[in-house]
Amino acid sequence: MTTVPAQQQDREERLTELVVRSFDACANPRLQRLMVGLVRHLHAYIREVRLTEAEWAEAIDFLTRCGHITTDKRQEFILLSDTLGASMQTIAVNNEAYGEATEASVVGPFFVEGSPEVPLGGDISNGAAGEACWVEGSVRDTEGRPLPGVLIEVWEADEDGRYDVQYDDDRTAARAHLYTDDDGNYRFWGITPTPYPIPHDGPVGTMLETVGRSPLRASHLHFMVVHEGYRTLVTHIFVQGDPLLDSDAVFGVKESLVQHFQQQPDGTPTPDGRKVDGTWSAVRFDIVLAPART
Amino acid sequence: MTTVPAQQQDREERLTELVVRSFDACANPRLQRLMVGLVRHLHAYIREVRLTEAEWAEAIDFLTRCGHITTDKRQEFILLSDTLGASMQTIAVNNEAYGEATEASVVGPFFVEGSPEVPLGGDISNGAAGEACWVEGSVRDTEGRPLPGVLIEVWEADEDGRYDVQYDDDRTAARAHLYTDDDGNYRFWGITPTPYPIPHDGPVGTMLETVGRSPLRASHLHFMVVHEGYRTLVTHIFVQGDPLLDSDAVFGVKESLVQHFQQQPDGTPTPDGRKVDGTWSAVRFDIVLAPART
Repeated sequence: MTTVPAQQQDREERLTELVVRSFDACANPRLQRLMVGLVRHLHAYIREVRLTEAEWAEAIDFLTRCGHITTDKRQEFILLSDTLGASMQTIAVNNEAYGEATEASVVGPFFVEGSPEVPLGGDISNGAAGEACWVEGSVRDTEGRPLPGVLIEVWEADEDGRYDVQYDDDRTAARAHLYTDDDGNYRFWGITPTPYPIPHDGPVGTMLETVGRSPLRASHLHFMVVHEGYRTLVTHIFVQGDPLLDSDAVFGVKESLVQHFQQQPDGTPTPDGRKVDGTWSAVRFDIVLAPART
Repeated sequence: MTTVPAQQQDREERLTELVVRSFDACANPRLQRLMVGLVRHLHAYIREVRLTEAEWAEAIDFLTRCGHITTDKRQEFILLSDTLGASMQTIAVNNEAYGEATEASVVGPFFVEGSPEVPLGGDISNGAAGEACWVEGSVRDTEGRPLPGVLIEVWEADEDGRYDVQYDDDRTAARAHLYTDDDGNYRFWGITPTPYPIPHDGPVGTMLETVGRSPLRASHLHFMVVHEGYRTLVTHIFVQGDPLLDSDAVFGVKESLVQHFQQQPDGTPTPDGRKVDGTWSAVRFDIVLAPART
């Protein structure tokens, strides 16, 4: 650590206070708090790392490149937020731990409103390439009471690592919604999740490569669980044993969300008697919803 | 302040540590320190202000708009850094206080290499509109010894608030360089500085307006002072009594840089006998250079 002389420290502190006071006239107290907090952390960072003028210029250039690659279909600033864990931290502060309630994860860029409904036990894949996967579980409240009629949205990438919306042919596949039965249970056929990289041909990809990080996301299946009187839960489940669990590019993995996807040899009878070509997998995911915040 | 339950705090802290550890394989220790410090402050900020998901989305959108307005002639990210005081704080940590050495300020976007040389007592304005201003002073080391042959670059906006490079006609005006004489003194004619706004038709301008801040810079005259064996000094002088001194949009003002521009009534004889139409002003700025860092 560099030792900074007192006279210099005093100069730097006075500058920060001057900037903080420039927001005194802000009519919106929440915005004022956001700006003042931002200024304090930004200045503390610059002082702590003793940012050089060349590093400052590099940062300006990096942000400029992120801005220039961003379009309505490619959002480099979200990738930046994701890869710095800022998205997951924002999720965390907005989904405070509540007893045994299921933990949240990032919504990601691939959720689409208006998915097709499938019946309980139906197949969400609609032709998406991948190994068949039986998914079942329950939805309960934090007292253990089953919740019937709960809306569950599910979506996932195919075995080529792409979501339906990443194809040019307007397909809807590996995406659907369904409702829990009278006992609060649900079940459907999907595909076994496989890993894929976040878009890494831009400045964020270069950053990851420079610091020795992978752009790969751990294999996962998305859930959004919605029920009147309960907190909406946005989360994923992850595949036990996936070597990427400890290095998910966006830090979406929570230990409690890692599930055992049981591999079934070719010819194993399925829970609903459906005939499946080749191997398949089965996973159970029991969901606990926290009460709505009052 | 919101009270955050221990279980929740633990979750948030573990997430930050996970992100920090993702940089463990970074081969460049300086880059690693920069990234880890950034992650720690970013996460601490999100946790401290309990950033909502809507505010996060607003921040992503703000950065996107900054990126889209930025071209090779308009740099919104630099304006953002300037208006948050990050540029001045970077200047501060790179120009540590040294005894009585003159303080630094931002270089700004209008310095141009290859300015014309003027002789001592010459006129830098070259037709730039504005009231004539006689500028004189000395350049010394921190022991008070005069420094002869020191290069001084000076540049300023005209009375319409524009630098020469902001006109489309390739003019060079209110910009020049000169050298101190054998006694370490300098003198030249320029124009009395007047205030002007930073570009404020983009997202940074909107931010300033929303928080109740002005885009105006306090009136100033730029100096860059270069001499072998000494730290290069980039600074401004400001006009005593300027009502904008306390609200400079980029926080460039230091008390020690505020100088008395003495107003001279019409007809007052000039120091060098030059005939001036109308009023003029006179200012003295004595410069002290710190030794080069070893």
